[in-house]
Amino acid sequence: MARFQIHPQLLLDCHSIGNFALCHLLLHKNAALPWFILVPETDALDLLDLPEKLRTIAVNEAAAVSDFVKEILHYPKTNFAAIGNVVPQLHLHIVGRKPGDPCWPTPVWGHLTDGPEYSAAELTEMTSLLVRHCALKFLK
Amino acid sequence: MARFQIHPQLLLDCHSIGNFALCHLLLHKNAALPWFILVPETDALDLLDLPEKLRTIAVNEAAAVSDFVKEILHYPKTNFAAIGNVVPQLHLHIVGRKPGDPCWPTPVWGHLTDGPEYSAAELTEMTSLLVRHCALKFLK
Repeated sequence: MARFQIHPQLLLDCHSIGNFALCHLLLHKNAALPWFILVPETDALDLLDLPEKLRTIAVNEAAAVSDFVKEILHYPKTNFAAIGNVVPQLHLHIVGRKPGDPCWPTPVWGHLTDGPEYSAAELTEMTSLLVRHCALKFLK
Repeated sequence: MARFQIHPQLLLDCHSIGNFALCHLLLHKNAALPWFILVPETDALDLLDLPEKLRTIAVNEAAAVSDFVKEILHYPKTNFAAIGNVVPQLHLHIVGRKPGDPCWPTPVWGHLTDGPEYSAAELTEMTSLLVRHCALKFLK
């Protein structure tokens, strides 16, 4: 079986951060908000098409990222979505939100304008925090 | 404990269709696309904050609705999201999508314009199909 490949558009839009048991963790390059993307290693295109066991693993990994966004990054709310109308490969969005953020209250998809970028130091710090708090593995 | 109340904005935007074990099933009044909304009986505000057991039940009920949208309504794709930036009560969107639909490929939230309404006959038919195919219970 061919090695799993993350869709090139996701790689263009995001930083690759690491891996959980099932999902690759990406961080959207737009640093206006903490916008994480999980890519499960599967050929299924919709989250709700995954077999229950795999779906539960994927959603639990999303919950770990959501907990991180709330507890460590101090965002009171997360938006969660699996859309995939433009990039068909299954990917799950976990976006930290708070009243007054650059897109509030509109969802980010199709609404968030260009924002600042993460510095190399910020990316290293974010990865280190995720490894410590979410049992994230560094990139294979 | 006070009886669970669905947020008035959701009741204004949607038709009440029935109940699953955990969630109330609503259908958005905009009939341009099959846009279902599940409201779990919980005080949690974000899907990923639900305890794993309840979360799995809610996501499984969403998967039953997604299967219905695909198999019975013949939509090839579903978008799934828990946002809640405007209506804080936890609610899960399951939206049937297909290339060329009135909003394709943009997500519906903040993008779908006013569309046709369901007739009473269409609502009865939809409810009847959901009872048959998704073990939906009629409204309590």
